[in-house]
Amino acid sequence: MSGNTLGQNFRVTTFGESHGIALGAIIDGCPPGMELSEEDIQIELDRRKPGTSKHATARREDDKVQILSGVFEGKTTGTPIGLMIHNTDQRSKDYSKVAETFRPAHADYTYTQKYGIRDYRGGGRSSARETAMRVAAGAVAKKYLKERLGIEIKGYLSQLGPITVDHVSWPFDNDNEYFCPDKNKQEEIRQYMDNLLKQKDSVGAKISIIAKNVPVGLGEPVFDRLDADLAHALMSINAVKGVEIGDGFAVAAQRGTEHRDEMTPEGFVSNHAGGILGGISTGQDIVAHIALKPTSSIMTPGRSINTEGEAIEMVTKGRHDPCVGIRATPIAEAKVALVLMDHFMRNRAQNGDVIPPVMDLAHPET
Amino acid sequence: MSGNTLGQNFRVTTFGESHGIALGAIIDGCPPGMELSEEDIQIELDRRKPGTSKHATARREDDKVQILSGVFEGKTTGTPIGLMIHNTDQRSKDYSKVAETFRPAHADYTYTQKYGIRDYRGGGRSSARETAMRVAAGAVAKKYLKERLGIEIKGYLSQLGPITVDHVSWPFDNDNEYFCPDKNKQEEIRQYMDNLLKQKDSVGAKISIIAKNVPVGLGEPVFDRLDADLAHALMSINAVKGVEIGDGFAVAAQRGTEHRDEMTPEGFVSNHAGGILGGISTGQDIVAHIALKPTSSIMTPGRSINTEGEAIEMVTKGRHDPCVGIRATPIAEAKVALVLMDHFMRNRAQNGDVIPPVMDLAHPET
Amino acid sequence: MSGNTLGQNFRVTTFGESHGIALGAIIDGCPPGMELSEEDIQIELDRRKPGTSKHATARREDDKVQILSGVFEGKTTGTPIGLMIHNTDQRSKDYSKVAETFRPAHADYTYTQKYGIRDYRGGGRSSARETAMRVAAGAVAKKYLKERLGIEIKGYLSQLGPITVDHVSWPFDNDNEYFCPDKNKQEEIRQYMDNLLKQKDSVGAKISIIAKNVPVGLGEPVFDRLDADLAHALMSINAVKGVEIGDGFAVAAQRGTEHRDEMTPEGFVSNHAGGILGGISTGQDIVAHIALKPTSSIMTPGRSINTEGEAIEMVTKGRHDPCVGIRATPIAEAKVALVLMDHFMRNRAQNGDVIPPVMDLAHPET
Amino acid sequence: MSGNTLGQNFRVTTFGESHGIALGAIIDGCPPGMELSEEDIQIELDRRKPGTSKHATARREDDKVQILSGVFEGKTTGTPIGLMIHNTDQRSKDYSKVAETFRPAHADYTYTQKYGIRDYRGGGRSSARETAMRVAAGAVAKKYLKERLGIEIKGYLSQLGPITVDHVSWPFDNDNEYFCPDKNKQEEIRQYMDNLLKQKDSVGAKISIIAKNVPVGLGEPVFDRLDADLAHALMSINAVKGVEIGDGFAVAAQRGTEHRDEMTPEGFVSNHAGGILGGISTGQDIVAHIALKPTSSIMTPGRSINTEGEAIEMVTKGRHDPCVGIRATPIAEAKVALVLMDHFMRNRAQNGDVIPPVMDLAHPET
Repeated sequence: MSGNTLGQNFRVTTFGESHGIALGAIIDGCPPGMELSEEDIQIELDRRKPGTSKHATARREDDKVQILSGVFEGKTTGTPIGLMIHNTDQRSKDYSKVAETFRPAHADYTYTQKYGIRDYRGGGRSSARETAMRVAAGAVAKKYLKERLGIEIKGYLSQLGPITVDHVSWPFDNDNEYFCPDKNKQEEIRQYMDNLLKQKDSVGAKISIIAKNVPVGLGEPVFDRLDADLAHALMSINAVKGVEIGDGFAVAAQRGTEHRDEMTPEGFVSNHAGGILGGISTGQDIVAHIALKPTSSIMTPGRSINTEGEAIEMVTKGRHDPCVGIRATPIAEAKVALVLMDHFMRNRAQNGDVIPPVMDLAHPET
Repeated sequence: MSGNTLGQNFRVTTFGESHGIALGAIIDGCPPGMELSEEDIQIELDRRKPGTSKHATARREDDKVQILSGVFEGKTTGTPIGLMIHNTDQRSKDYSKVAETFRPAHADYTYTQKYGIRDYRGGGRSSARETAMRVAAGAVAKKYLKERLGIEIKGYLSQLGPITVDHVSWPFDNDNEYFCPDKNKQEEIRQYMDNLLKQKDSVGAKISIIAKNVPVGLGEPVFDRLDADLAHALMSINAVKGVEIGDGFAVAAQRGTEHRDEMTPEGFVSNHAGGILGGISTGQDIVAHIALKPTSSIMTPGRSINTEGEAIEMVTKGRHDPCVGIRATPIAEAKVALVLMDHFMRNRAQNGDVIPPVMDLAHPET
Repeated sequence: MSGNTLGQNFRVTTFGESHGIALGAIIDGCPPGMELSEEDIQIELDRRKPGTSKHATARREDDKVQILSGVFEGKTTGTPIGLMIHNTDQRSKDYSKVAETFRPAHADYTYTQKYGIRDYRGGGRSSARETAMRVAAGAVAKKYLKERLGIEIKGYLSQLGPITVDHVSWPFDNDNEYFCPDKNKQEEIRQYMDNLLKQKDSVGAKISIIAKNVPVGLGEPVFDRLDADLAHALMSINAVKGVEIGDGFAVAAQRGTEHRDEMTPEGFVSNHAGGILGGISTGQDIVAHIALKPTSSIMTPGRSINTEGEAIEMVTKGRHDPCVGIRATPIAEAKVALVLMDHFMRNRAQNGDVIPPVMDLAHPET
Repeated sequence: MSGNTLGQNFRVTTFGESHGIALGAIIDGCPPGMELSEEDIQIELDRRKPGTSKHATARREDDKVQILSGVFEGKTTGTPIGLMIHNTDQRSKDYSKVAETFRPAHADYTYTQKYGIRDYRGGGRSSARETAMRVAAGAVAKKYLKERLGIEIKGYLSQLGPITVDHVSWPFDNDNEYFCPDKNKQEEIRQYMDNLLKQKDSVGAKISIIAKNVPVGLGEPVFDRLDADLAHALMSINAVKGVEIGDGFAVAAQRGTEHRDEMTPEGFVSNHAGGILGGISTGQDIVAHIALKPTSSIMTPGRSINTEGEAIEMVTKGRHDPCVGIRATPIAEAKVALVLMDHFMRNRAQNGDVIPPVMDLAHPET
């Protein structure tokens, strides 16, 4: 299959291009009986929406989501939930020049090679605009996980270029334009970004995600481990180039005595593993990190070629996020929600509703 | 489903526990007409085999693979290829004490919680022994990719604890006990490992994988991107805690002017992206890195609990690899081969056999 | 997963209820570069549309399909094709009484039991209205199969109650309100149906489908045989209770000497097998038959219960097709097209574009 | 994928050719904690085994199944169950002539065309011998369904050539060489079969299957309806040419007033639907019928061609079942078990363990 479906039991399939008529998604398998309104979804879409800060793209995306099916008298019915967002701001003229060129670090070249044809308006299917539907679908999963299982999923900006946010203790506030939990760093980021715009450049970022109250036992060995499916879901977010679980790449330099999370009758004494052992959740916090490359569309000219293979100079006009990583926070939360929801259902298929934990070692908190 | 199948068109399903009767795999969808012998598979299994150095576990695994079906008169027939390795060295007595305890950093606790039962002999299904079948299946994919498409996949040890191997230029030699391409570092590693054994400790590692001559166009947007499927396949290898494509986590600190791989009529001028743009291969080298945690089984005592929830002290007896990362090299190569094979077939399903590249920008080499 | 997706490589996922806002589908995996317009799809939808004869339901379904994505400048791009039909004629008031009752032979009881909730307006998700999206998706497959492979798929009414249409030779005309290829029978059917309406009753039907010019080699043993996947696709059409390939149930009384389709250098001498041997197409005509139960909604009162479990008398008001089987013809064609398209792509994934037939035994024609 | 996997949550993947080294299967997703021994599986395999009557093939198939994994200390662990049967009676010499010819009504021609190569020994992968693994996997599902849900699945020979078995009331005995529940017909069948052998001919058959105590609510609309998945599973059995649910093809001649199963507070008053409405089980008996073509291998010469395309006369030597349909009874039971098991788990994934039935209308019994 062609890759536009995520999940085995809670399945999300999406369609839509940046400047097409609409974006849409079908959620197949949502448990019945959950209250669900468009507002429940809109609230997450608004968190992802650009234009909330001067550093985000000025493109207005109304992103008003519509529920087309699967909800009756305010509740999910168990039948497929059709979601749609009309593209109200198509502005295809702005992108017409792109048709004959391959923008560096974009998917223009690869889509053309793969399919022999591409919708060149605003990146077409490869545009980050497509992630709106992932956030929409993720909102449904998030709601179920929170209401039925008490799971909370929250991400934050842990690095932007040279600026790092070292430690975050739960609960933390990511409700600001940078999803930055450290108020002291927000001004620093703002200045860095202002400077970046003047330099006509962009920068990468690192996002961290924590999922709390995940029950022990989610994840299917050996291929569809919880960490493997998280890696799949997170790496498929536009611009992501790296995924870590728990201590991530730091483990390459760790000793076994240092890394192993010892257990006592009171619980795990540490969480280097990021809440997953043998591909299965331990009940501790799930901790994941992702790295996102700098925005590819920048106003500093770069070398490229046109579709005739001739050398050209590329300059991206229009305003673009100088750091796409920032807005990835709600997207990453959505992807984690989709994976956990799917694994909750996969586990329930095989093991039934209630597995009384032999013992609960989740604590202490991360 | 329960997660023991990898791939959509080239599907591998495995079974088997560390100390069970046998390990096995079914490869479903292998193209017909390829010459295939047990020796073709054995050669890869032998690369993974422990006991080749004094730092690897002394357990003798004969790992003699048998082809049970799908090959007739020396050629694949297109029907499922059944593979099996008998466990000749079961020694289940050595592990009997483990039954009542949860080893730290192992899957003992999570398997017990998930299933309410676990095969405690040598880690059962969660043992790294299971990866033998991935290597076996990967050998079939690797052979096809090399013979039909000229693709070569090679990994190497790029970090072991504090020791790093900085740069590798193709072709390189990974044919030594540490899969280390830098001869100067091999002695350093040997000394580090000797010291580690004396300290009764273990250490993490980083493995890098390069796939060469991958045709442009492999990868299915938006969820099953080539990078996302690589992340899934690599993260599911035992002990892996991080996956990077191309520059990986370094991109968080990069500028757009620095990261974007510019194009000229002669080709891409750099490969920060690791050979993948928009989830689709560019024709450049695919570059991936993984981080593996230190071996969990070490002889230094650690705190844990037994199945009654009582505090105990754990010491792992018997010899274990002090660095499981080293042996992960052939496993990672196998996983990359399986993903590329599957995506070659997925692409062929939709786009047909031959997509004449509009232009070949693969060069210069990484 | 919840069952609203059909196919492995050419994947169709649908959503929508009878009286919801809209019906929709996503086609994932369509090969790129095919010309496709809304008119190409509309032409098939119009064949299925009710209201074309006085014996079909008077409900006006405009069924104007909209392509929301996946087509650019008139051609498919290889990205998901989003399709939508708005429900213009919702009339939900007509169905309000149904909320508290279970209509006999409908899915009211089973949906309520399964999900604990149901959209009772017009049958909700279980309504035959949902098949519009199957026809829409099938139209895309049909177009590809015809243009690229020369495959033609045509169905006809082979039985309606006591009236049978014995033999059909290709080419035949099904372009009439009963999809009846025998002009002599059309008047007989009309009279039978008029009588049926007077009797406030309904009747079953049998539909036969022929697919011509199907290349040899489609179908995946052992589970996803071409005949098995046809059976799956056809049995999932509303009201279908039986599926036959070739001679179907008549084989139970046949002798081996009679059934086996002998071969000569000039080709197969008969086609009792219906064009499939060992689950793989032979190159002969694919021949399938389906039986559809009589319309469940009839004006003759029947016994049922309400949601309180109390006995009630049910009468279905409003006009309904007295024979749902008739309109199943374009639906069945669509389903056969979807299966053949998927298997064409599945075969191409494994075996590549061109399998030069060792020999062509397709003739003589059925 | 290549089609050798059945099921979404309870997944069975098989391998093996008629005269290869071994047949095998992997069951992925079996719930943990069920007692399972080789004997539990062997008992079903023995029911399918040929050579139990003089009318079945004289080939000795020991069919001793071995459990290679997934069971520990007598109980399933939730990890994949590897099953294997060694082919002890390979006798490949007997089949050597087949290499150059295409046997009529066999898969020789289609396999060769599809793959360009075939294992010609005894039909290779297309041999009915492969169904042994389906029976083995089905035995595991059957055990779970019976022990945990009280479901019983039983098939019987309902037609053999001109001989029909009209009505069967539960409980019935199918424990005889013809799986014929009517003792009076057994002698008639024996005489018919004796005569058939003398005539060097074969005959078709019809098998009926009843599943009792199936809970209401199994089946996933709209594509993966319970009836659609039953049709898929049953049609994929070798030699099957037709599948019916409930009244099957008889519905084409039925009136709505006749067909609809009315409901009263005491339950459904009839079961024309065969226990499925809208693709979802009603709680009534699931009733299915299949038609199997006559054995293709007969001693009466027939016209065929060799691989050079030249006309030849075929005579099948060796003894073959003159009616393959008879032995299909345990295979059909196994397939029904696999589908019900998978749908039980699919339903549990979405709807949880316990759906307290709003009301139980299952009675009266069929």
